[in-house]
Order: sequence, then structure tokens, then C-alpha cells
Amino acid sequence: MEKPSERIKSLGLVLPPAPPPAGLYKPILVVDQFLYVSGQGPVMNDGSLFTGRVGDGLSLEDGKRAARQVALTMLATITTHFGDLNRIKRLIKTLGMVNCTPDFGNQPLVINGFSELMSDIFGKDHGVGVRSAVGMMLPGQVAVEIEAMFELH
Amino acid sequence: MEKPSERIKSLGLVLPPAPPPAGLYKPILVVDQFLYVSGQGPVMNDGSLFTGRVGDGLSLEDGKRAARQVALTMLATITTHFGDLNRIKRLIKTLGMVNCTPDFGNQPLVINGFSELMSDIFGKDHGVGVRSAVGMMLPGQVAVEIEAMFELH
Amino acid sequence: MEKPSERIKSLGLVLPPAPPPAGLYKPILVVDQFLYVSGQGPVMNDGSLFTGRVGDGLSLEDGKRAARQVALTMLATITTHFGDLNRIKRLIKTLGMVNCTPDFGNQPLVINGFSELMSDIFGKDHGVGVRSAVGMMLPGQVAVEIEAMFELH
Repeated sequence: MEKPSERIKSLGLVLPPAPPPAGLYKPILVVDQFLYVSGQGPVMNDGSLFTGRVGDGLSLEDGKRAARQVALTMLATITTHFGDLNRIKRLIKTLGMVNCTPDFGNQPLVINGFSELMSDIFGKDHGVGVRSAVGMMLPGQVAVEIEAMFELH
Repeated sequence: MEKPSERIKSLGLVLPPAPPPAGLYKPILVVDQFLYVSGQGPVMNDGSLFTGRVGDGLSLEDGKRAARQVALTMLATITTHFGDLNRIKRLIKTLGMVNCTPDFGNQPLVINGFSELMSDIFGKDHGVGVRSAVGMMLPGQVAVEIEAMFELH
Repeated sequence: MEKPSERIKSLGLVLPPAPPPAGLYKPILVVDQFLYVSGQGPVMNDGSLFTGRVGDGLSLEDGKRAARQVALTMLATITTHFGDLNRIKRLIKTLGMVNCTPDFGNQPLVINGFSELMSDIFGKDHGVGVRSAVGMMLPGQVAVEIEAMFELH
């Protein structure tokens, strides 16, 4: 299988600019062989954020696109730190947070937008970990925010 | 003390069917001596989900019963993976998520339904870990969803 | 640099009483060289809780003060367990939860109240970790609740 950073190119994916922290925290932290990533929003290629509430203006498909963009944003954040993605061994854990109305119940399908991209890049085994996908109130009205934990080579 | 899977039988507990993933994730993942469990909903013995919002249709006691059912569902998920519960050494961490109204403030008492069952099965020391119990919007309108991390023998 | 417990004194900070658990969980748990801390609310020096919803009665600055008080509460909880704060090596991860209205979008600035105090006590490198700052429904209508993971010496 291709290495992750080669896979990004093969799939024709474009990583957005890695976002600066929105507060007093580190974007990522390495502890032993584990990589912790702060909650990432959906940064577009022009640096703007994908905002809105799913179930009130945004559709399920909009939300899924936002979650896919969060995945690209997270890969940009990791690439900015390490230079490439090749130290990532596998995804361990994802907390997928959707800005949605109380009546919206398809958070798992929204967060699949993130999970499918991770699976495409790191493979169906190492790109898929444990996950919760739930609804919250998110900063700056972003549509989706996701934090994750990876294992490193 | 009895082993956990024997304790389930002694207490006359019935585990519901382990739920298939509701999206692209693994129900559980083992990393070194740790077991990570994806967010679990309250699956009933007939395979249906315990749905509703606490504070709007569901009472505190309803919510607590849902949280207890999440514990049984999580034990079913773990049993399906390992064959029994005997590799579990202790519960480390619980994130208890309650589908509730903004004015409901007893999330800890709801999530006690999960914690009391874990304490019954794994003991008052090893069955009790750190915890947060908070309110969110949950997938499929389930009443409670809980993710957890355990240490393995 | 001063040791953390000396730094508390130098800064003239007063730790509130460590709160008893609000349900069936342990306030903190040590696993190998890691310290897991249960979700902590903002306990005031008289033992009462800082309650209210940011964006509806509480301002951003109120919320930030609540988050700072959560930091003091967490330090009280850790001090009660270990006798002092000197075993803390660094903050790894923070989940900052704000009781806010759906339209409030400055959760990161609220949680900075916690992060700035941690940075003051443990330093700009070891006191700053990864973080998510989001909105939820919180127990007892507390304004802010925060869970965290630290590395120990």
C-alpha cells in the first residue's frame, strides 16, 4: 500500500492551511507512541470555516462534507507538525461532534465523512478506530468538530 | 470474588444482542493493555433501542434504566469480541452522555445506572473509574450513550 | 521555576474545598504514569457552585471566571489525593465543556480561563496540552465542567 502522504496525492486531495490554535492549547501532542490531536474544525482551502447547524439550514450531506473537510484539516495539522503523515500507524479513537438541532439523529452518518477519508488514507484496518458521534454546541458555529488519538510508528 | 462472566449469571442478568456498528468504526479496539469501547447506546433484549429525552417524556428513573441498559450493551459488545469478560481488569474512564433538555441537571444520577452495574460486576474498586456525565444531542434519539476505556489483564 | 504547589502560594491563589463525587466515580485515577481526572465543576471557596448559562444571563467573562475556578477546583482535587501538586509533569489533554446557548460561539475563550491558570502553574510548555472546547448541557446547571489527563513524574 502507498504511504499516507503519497496516497493524499494519488487521490488528488488538497489539504487546507493548518489552522492556528483558537485558544491556549497545542494543536497536537506526542506522548510516548501516541499522538493526541485537539478538536479540529472544517477549514476550507481558502482558510474560511464551514459553518452552520445540521438540521437547520445544513443537510445531512452538508454535514458529511464538513466532516470530510475536518479530516483534511486534521491531516494538514499533522503534516505541519511532522512534515508528512508517514509516522501515523493507526487511528485509535475519534470523538465526532456535530453542530445540530435537538431533533437531528444522524450524527454517525455525518461523522462517516471523516471516517471514510481516514479509511481511504490509512486503510480499512489502521484507518478505522473506535468512535462516538454526537451533537453539541460548537465554537464559531462550525458545522463539525473532531478530536482524535492516533498510534505512531 | 466471582469472575465477571460468572457474576453476570449469578445476578441473573441477560445481555442484549451486541449491536452492529452504526457507522464506519470498530466497536472496540485493544491497544497494549487497554481496551477502548465506542459509544454504546441502550440496546434492549429484543434488539430495539431505548429512545427519548430525559426531562421531556423520560424521567430521571427512565434515564437511569437506559444507562443500566447501556452497561449491559457494552458488556455484550465486549463479550462478543473476547468470548467472555474475564480479560477486563478495571474500568478506567467513562464519558456518560444523556439526551436531555437544557434545564435537566441530574446527568450524574442518570449515569449512575451504568456505574452501579459496572461496580456490581467488576467490584467497588475495579468497577469504578473516573467519569464525566453530561447532556448532548444523541444519534437516533437514544436516551443515553456511553463510551469507556478499560484496563485488561 | 518554582514547584507547582509553591507557585500556587506565590500567586496568592486559594484552592476551594475539593468536591465530593456527585455520583459513583473516583475523582482521580492513576494508571501507569498518567493521571485521569473526572469532570470537575467550578467550586467556589465557600463550597457553592458557579452556575448559569453563558449567553443567557452569564457573559463570556463570567464563563471565563467559571473556567478559572474549575482549574482551582481540579488542583484542589489533585492536592487532596497526593498532598501537593509536585507529581504533575504536564497537562496532556483537556475536554472543556461550557453550559451555553446554541448561538454562543466563544467556548475557546471561556475555556482559556482554565488553560491560562494551568499555564501559570505548570509553565507555558508543560501546562498547555491538546484541548477541545465545546457546549453541552451540564449537571446542576454549572457554568463550566472540565475533564483532563496529566502525565506524572
